[in-house]
Amino acid sequence: MMTVRETCVKAKEHAQQIALAREEDMNVMLAAAAKALRANAAEIIAENRKDVEHCTRGPQFADRLMLNEKRIDGIAAGLEKLIELRCPVGEVLEERTLYNGLQLRRVRVPLGVLGIIYEARPNVTADAIGLAIKSGNAVVLRGSKDAIRSNKAVCSVIKDAIAEAGYDAEFIQLIEDTTREGAGEFMKMNGVVDVLIPRGSASLIRNAVQNATVPIIETGTGNCHVYFENTADFAKAMPILLNAKTQRTSVCNACESLLVDEAFAEKHLKAIVEGLRSAGVEIVACEKSRALVPDLAAATEEDYYTEFLAMKISIKIVQGFEEAIAHVNKYGTHHSDSIVTEDPAAAERFLNEVDSAAVYVNASTRFTDGFEFGLGAEMGISTQKLHARGPMGLRELTSYKYQIRGNGQIRG
Amino acid sequence: MMTVRETCVKAKEHAQQIALAREEDMNVMLAAAAKALRANAAEIIAENRKDVEHCTRGPQFADRLMLNEKRIDGIAAGLEKLIELRCPVGEVLEERTLYNGLQLRRVRVPLGVLGIIYEARPNVTADAIGLAIKSGNAVVLRGSKDAIRSNKAVCSVIKDAIAEAGYDAEFIQLIEDTTREGAGEFMKMNGVVDVLIPRGSASLIRNAVQNATVPIIETGTGNCHVYFENTADFAKAMPILLNAKTQRTSVCNACESLLVDEAFAEKHLKAIVEGLRSAGVEIVACEKSRALVPDLAAATEEDYYTEFLAMKISIKIVQGFEEAIAHVNKYGTHHSDSIVTEDPAAAERFLNEVDSAAVYVNASTRFTDGFEFGLGAEMGISTQKLHARGPMGLRELTSYKYQIRGNGQIRG
Repeated sequence: MMTVRETCVKAKEHAQQIALAREEDMNVMLAAAAKALRANAAEIIAENRKDVEHCTRGPQFADRLMLNEKRIDGIAAGLEKLIELRCPVGEVLEERTLYNGLQLRRVRVPLGVLGIIYEARPNVTADAIGLAIKSGNAVVLRGSKDAIRSNKAVCSVIKDAIAEAGYDAEFIQLIEDTTREGAGEFMKMNGVVDVLIPRGSASLIRNAVQNATVPIIETGTGNCHVYFENTADFAKAMPILLNAKTQRTSVCNACESLLVDEAFAEKHLKAIVEGLRSAGVEIVACEKSRALVPDLAAATEEDYYTEFLAMKISIKIVQGFEEAIAHVNKYGTHHSDSIVTEDPAAAERFLNEVDSAAVYVNASTRFTDGFEFGLGAEMGISTQKLHARGPMGLRELTSYKYQIRGNGQIRG
Repeated sequence: MMTVRETCVKAKEHAQQIALAREEDMNVMLAAAAKALRANAAEIIAENRKDVEHCTRGPQFADRLMLNEKRIDGIAAGLEKLIELRCPVGEVLEERTLYNGLQLRRVRVPLGVLGIIYEARPNVTADAIGLAIKSGNAVVLRGSKDAIRSNKAVCSVIKDAIAEAGYDAEFIQLIEDTTREGAGEFMKMNGVVDVLIPRGSASLIRNAVQNATVPIIETGTGNCHVYFENTADFAKAMPILLNAKTQRTSVCNACESLLVDEAFAEKHLKAIVEGLRSAGVEIVACEKSRALVPDLAAATEEDYYTEFLAMKISIKIVQGFEEAIAHVNKYGTHHSDSIVTEDPAAAERFLNEVDSAAVYVNASTRFTDGFEFGLGAEMGISTQKLHARGPMGLRELTSYKYQIRGNGQIRG
């Protein structure tokens, strides 16, 4: 078994193959990988079954881990979709002639070596490889122990397919050491891994933030708000809230907290509570809400900070959008927040003053997604401000370099 | 004395004042700050003198620390220059209508709270404040103990000037706790500080990389190469090398290593060595070089990794540009590297395959600089690939957000 360092160094040593690959070759690799996944589905499923059998973490976890023909077909289709997307590498971002005749160009280049650390979803293995190929990056994958057989199977099927198509596939590496120490070592591969992207639970991401010395992109935690401003149209407001809260609860762009302007609450809180309850949503609420609808459970301060990821919501009555904006900026995770309003001035202020990756007027927070935003792919949703914010597609997996052409210029 | 956390939180609490400020107000602040620095030069110099008197680190260090009327005038002029630069905040980077009618806009926004950790150059205090103002960012400054009186004087003169001009100046904060523990705490202000930028020595930067949990931008270390390819024009080559090596040795874009193609070396190495020596440059070289010029000192493996920051250079003979590129990518710091060649194909390969922030053909590496590149300002030179690469101006101190306007859209 290669050590973590050896695995990362191997990816780096082969990084130039993919960094300098022509787009048509990237596409051949993607097509070959997709075809091979389908052709070898039985073998992958057999390995996956062993992972599922060893899994002792309950049915929900096992379901995320499980692969079947349909899921593998979906993964392959994901790779094929990347073929249609334009490779961002080589794009000229700027071109200028400097005062001394130097010709300066800023050109998009791959980041280099992507490190991906993730949990028990084997689909991430193939997704990340596909995104790496089309963005010209080498990739080092480190999934969890629970999915190691599945990840190895998916990875080797793809690498074999790329090699059979006549390319060097060693820019793709999977870390086989799934120990905690191995993860720690991976997070400190400065000079080898250019960026670490953690994909998974809040604790995985926190661990990476605390321990990584390579640059990381923080993803995923979403304590998202919907805010019913005084002038909100109730006919729009309730569908937006219900969609944001209930359409899928386990995702980072789901709503976790509702803010309601006082006057609007006086008119509508009862109906809001009824609507949420009949959709099966548990509610915790502030004192003012409980004065209007007495049988509501009390929300703690902690509740307002919580990403429930469940059929549960916190409600708070606010006095105008200043308080609403301050609340979102304080308790939120700067992911996705929406105002429902008919007042353009309130909408503008919310858009400008809420410090989140995606800020909405009269729409569900559930749209924060690489596919919905038209990026065509997604490596995760960044909740930090450095490098990339919100959904990360191929472009967000690139950097740039300055290329300067001279004819003997020296500095005076 | 406020704690590190209190200081950072205070900056964050006032960050919206500057994030939402109009460009004309930013300019008033900059002009007021510049004027006040000149008007209060005597007071600043008096405080600076105490720092210099307490300084026990030798004359070179004391010189970096020292402020006089001329230097203060230069610092003020730097602030005034920022007035002419366009504030990047608010720029619409993308605008699209999605399939469902949602209007999506990607808009440039400030990063939020910049953390700057630096050593004994009090000019950084004013430079960083100026860049923060014009990029809409709050800023927390943490200079070294050696310069604390100077930094406090500069900072308070600027803040007083901004306050007198009628603005809230508390988005600017200086950490007074200059202990090592204080620095450690500063590096872990996640959720308060959005990015930490270390400016100074390699050890300061290494310390930040190792210990920071907030996102950082690695700056400054430059083990830069000049490569004389076989077809190089000797008349261009020597001035480029001498400029890159000797024009200023203490800076990150100075040349530290020369690569020479074998055939070119056979013809010219003696003249190259003579040229370097008569400019006062000490040379360490590979065995092949020593075979051609016997009195050269031997270079160790370590020498090729070393940023001398002095009148010293390592020389290595290579066999063609493949070896040259591999050497640069292995031993370099991905800062600035230059090929001297008359062969366009070699030039293209060098530009594309050398993995550095700035790659040159027939020009000195000394041009890697925010002012030379026309950015108008510089917060440092990033040697990482995430977020910003090469010289960082105002644009590199921003992030973006997605603003989405709908009329009731929900996700299906």
